[in-house]
Amino acid sequence: MILGESNGTTSSGEGASTLTAADVAALVGGELRGDGSAEVRSVAPIDRAAAGDVTFLANARYARFLAEPRDGGPVLLVSPELAETPGGTAARIVVGKPQEAMLEVLPRLYRPASLASGIDPTARIGHGARIGRAVYLGPFVVIGEGAVIGDEARVEAHSVVGAGAQIGARSHLYPHVTIYSGSTLGERVIVHSGSRIGSDGFGYVFRGGVHEKIPHVGRCIISNDVEIGANTTIDRGSIDDTVVGVGTKIDNLVQIGHNCRIGKLSLIMAQVGLAGSTWVGDGCIIAGQAGLSGHLTIGDGARLGAQAGVFGDVPGGETWSGYPARKHSESLRASAALFKLSTLMKRIEKLLKDHGL
Amino acid sequence: MILGESNGTTSSGEGASTLTAADVAALVGGELRGDGSAEVRSVAPIDRAAAGDVTFLANARYARFLAEPRDGGPVLLVSPELAETPGGTAARIVVGKPQEAMLEVLPRLYRPASLASGIDPTARIGHGARIGRAVYLGPFVVIGEGAVIGDEARVEAHSVVGAGAQIGARSHLYPHVTIYSGSTLGERVIVHSGSRIGSDGFGYVFRGGVHEKIPHVGRCIISNDVEIGANTTIDRGSIDDTVVGVGTKIDNLVQIGHNCRIGKLSLIMAQVGLAGSTWVGDGCIIAGQAGLSGHLTIGDGARLGAQAGVFGDVPGGETWSGYPARKHSESLRASAALFKLSTLMKRIEKLLKDHGL
Amino acid sequence: MILGESNGTTSSGEGASTLTAADVAALVGGELRGDGSAEVRSVAPIDRAAAGDVTFLANARYARFLAEPRDGGPVLLVSPELAETPGGTAARIVVGKPQEAMLEVLPRLYRPASLASGIDPTARIGHGARIGRAVYLGPFVVIGEGAVIGDEARVEAHSVVGAGAQIGARSHLYPHVTIYSGSTLGERVIVHSGSRIGSDGFGYVFRGGVHEKIPHVGRCIISNDVEIGANTTIDRGSIDDTVVGVGTKIDNLVQIGHNCRIGKLSLIMAQVGLAGSTWVGDGCIIAGQAGLSGHLTIGDGARLGAQAGVFGDVPGGETWSGYPARKHSESLRASAALFKLSTLMKRIEKLLKDHGL
Repeated sequence: MILGESNGTTSSGEGASTLTAADVAALVGGELRGDGSAEVRSVAPIDRAAAGDVTFLANARYARFLAEPRDGGPVLLVSPELAETPGGTAARIVVGKPQEAMLEVLPRLYRPASLASGIDPTARIGHGARIGRAVYLGPFVVIGEGAVIGDEARVEAHSVVGAGAQIGARSHLYPHVTIYSGSTLGERVIVHSGSRIGSDGFGYVFRGGVHEKIPHVGRCIISNDVEIGANTTIDRGSIDDTVVGVGTKIDNLVQIGHNCRIGKLSLIMAQVGLAGSTWVGDGCIIAGQAGLSGHLTIGDGARLGAQAGVFGDVPGGETWSGYPARKHSESLRASAALFKLSTLMKRIEKLLKDHGL
Repeated sequence: MILGESNGTTSSGEGASTLTAADVAALVGGELRGDGSAEVRSVAPIDRAAAGDVTFLANARYARFLAEPRDGGPVLLVSPELAETPGGTAARIVVGKPQEAMLEVLPRLYRPASLASGIDPTARIGHGARIGRAVYLGPFVVIGEGAVIGDEARVEAHSVVGAGAQIGARSHLYPHVTIYSGSTLGERVIVHSGSRIGSDGFGYVFRGGVHEKIPHVGRCIISNDVEIGANTTIDRGSIDDTVVGVGTKIDNLVQIGHNCRIGKLSLIMAQVGLAGSTWVGDGCIIAGQAGLSGHLTIGDGARLGAQAGVFGDVPGGETWSGYPARKHSESLRASAALFKLSTLMKRIEKLLKDHGL
Repeated sequence: MILGESNGTTSSGEGASTLTAADVAALVGGELRGDGSAEVRSVAPIDRAAAGDVTFLANARYARFLAEPRDGGPVLLVSPELAETPGGTAARIVVGKPQEAMLEVLPRLYRPASLASGIDPTARIGHGARIGRAVYLGPFVVIGEGAVIGDEARVEAHSVVGAGAQIGARSHLYPHVTIYSGSTLGERVIVHSGSRIGSDGFGYVFRGGVHEKIPHVGRCIISNDVEIGANTTIDRGSIDDTVVGVGTKIDNLVQIGHNCRIGKLSLIMAQVGLAGSTWVGDGCIIAGQAGLSGHLTIGDGARLGAQAGVFGDVPGGETWSGYPARKHSESLRASAALFKLSTLMKRIEKLLKDHGL
């Protein structure tokens, strides 16, 4: 490997090609209005998109940016109800979901940075570790004894894989990740910078006047196609295992306690915390900063609102919110009642007084 | 030191020996029922424990797992009220607190990974640093000028100890820990991966149209037998010191602001935040995601509920919860009243109207 | 560079000189009472300040510490209303804002550690990276291809700067920082240990039975004079950019989602979370653990209380708090009404019953 070729975090790559507005319309299945020969080479947000860019408008909040004078006009993916928004564009493509349509366009304009493989000379590989085919190990990576790194996996600078831990094929650890011993990552798992997988859980028994540490010998199992954001922490099990199911996505700064089990295809947003031994089903959505106490069961397809404080089991398919969390409709009703109450309180007190209560 | 011998995070070690059910019963002081000669070599959670494993059952939630067919039966530590739970076991040991009893068994089956000592050739040691006896410094560790590392301390891969900082004997820094200058760790302190000890607090004075930074020259003092979870941040004092008392345990992703003082043997759970200059007494428990504003005093033995928003002092021994936090009994009563209110609101409004209010 | 000269995190430096009480009084514009020739060489908190120290008293909570016997007396900066607090001092200096006054004194007693420049031999610099004048790159630093490091910037041990990222002049990255590709830091930016700048946002489209990842090609732009605490995460934009404005200060463990735009001179305290595409104005204050949902607009000068759950736009200049957040005065009134309600509930129920409701 050539020094520097893959130093640092992955680049998003360079503009890879040129499309015409007609190409874009065909790609996204939208209705072309304007100059089909207008060329685009990159995407840009609507407030700075200019000639040569493709951008999108799906929310009236951003419509005013279109009117701002700029050097030439971009090609605009636009939802039907905003299609007539005034402003200078080279061409417009009317499509139901402009933001999703951008997903079709992006890979045509941006190629992922070429993923160099190779083992940096500074990477440290412990005895008995098995390194797959076409693996990338970046500068100062540390692979523990007996660890397994699957084919085409990428371990970026400074990441540490503990003794005996396993990283599945095509997984990608960004810089500064720690995988403790006892952890297993499936295939195509992405772990962003600074996340800690498999650290000891918070478990003590108060004996002899001290908090005696409970040894943690359970595992931490991350299934295929999971993505984990930056600076998130997932503890290993104490005796049981901690498990994150296939295709679940976890945001930044999330805490998953020991012995938790999270199902498939769930979404867990930033700063959520799960205390120990809580089970979350498949297809759940847990919004930002929600907290779940320990030993709960959250059914498949449940949704928990932002900042919800969940102290009991939640049936599958239901949406709960608030503190303490209840069904979302009940929480909304309680919240509305509270703000109404504060306007009625003086009258209620007068009424009680009038009735000698 | 042999390359690779201690790369990566500490393993939990291998099954170290074999015990019989009778051995286990004697060890935990429990009542043996069944085959005292049944052998165990490892622990496992109840949902996958089989012949050769010891497991436990202390919560009816998990009883159903015992009935699942499996290859042979484990030795089961079980609480008296669940002792008759149906299911296949090689032997049962009835004991008051099965989970605590497991703590007696674990060290007999798992030996801590042999802790190699030695200084990795890639470790960087600053001028005037003092390294104790039988210390382990892992790959790419950086020890600043004049820092002190106590006997038998372990500093794992990539951790950074700032100039002049002190790490007490037998302390253990997992990979990627940062100890800023001005920090002192006592003996047997454990710091999990990615925690930052002694960073500057959040202090500014608005002057001359900018937020002018308050220099931080106070210290950050972590006492003996403290454990700190992963990705936690503890700021140094501005002029005063930040202090964490003996035997206190802090979970993952916790924020401790500048000038905070936490007493002995307290427990601070994941994602808790303490603003600056708040003092927490001895033996307190602060549950997950609770937040404490600045300059508060929390008395000895106080307990704060999960997500509590604490804006005032809490007397010793009391339990507070909710937002804004009040005595737990008051918070519960208020919460119950609120949900009842939402069902009464229409009638209350009618009553007020009937009375011309 | 001499090995070890700059290993580890920056020290606060040593006591640099000696001042007399008269010098201090002149420096802060205060009224000297007592021995103007008393010498000070360091600052200390009031509970352990002794002869040779300068300390301050601005809050009656700390007054009792002044009375404790100690070896000699410190020089005390004290607010007018506490000027007569009993206790042994070598001299007192009465001044309106003693804590701010300390800011004048600190730089006279503490010089910043001498900031060695130089590139550690273990630092890795990618092809085409441009390294400015008098830069410090610490041990095991990784600079990606084509990255730009401005003059006099300091990149401490283990930090990683992604391919093409830019770090402005005199900026300071503490150890273990990750700057992803696509990020640009202005001048004099400080990033504390473990923060992650420019990681992918949390964006997926559910298609074909999986959560399909939205590519992130937007940038992450951190303006001049921003300070970012430890273990904070700031995501890059998806197509739009994430922007933090000039002079804004961000505390530890904060989450800033993709496409957020934060204005100038705002303060964002620990563990705050901003979901994606939320815009925060200039001069805002967001207190600890507050959470903001996505696509909101927070006006200039708005203040959000600790743990506020903000689900709607907040007009400039207003203070909001609570969950769901409302104007602070309304939240206080609702909270007061709730606690009063819980004491009235039985009587209200009797009244309704008496009226057949």
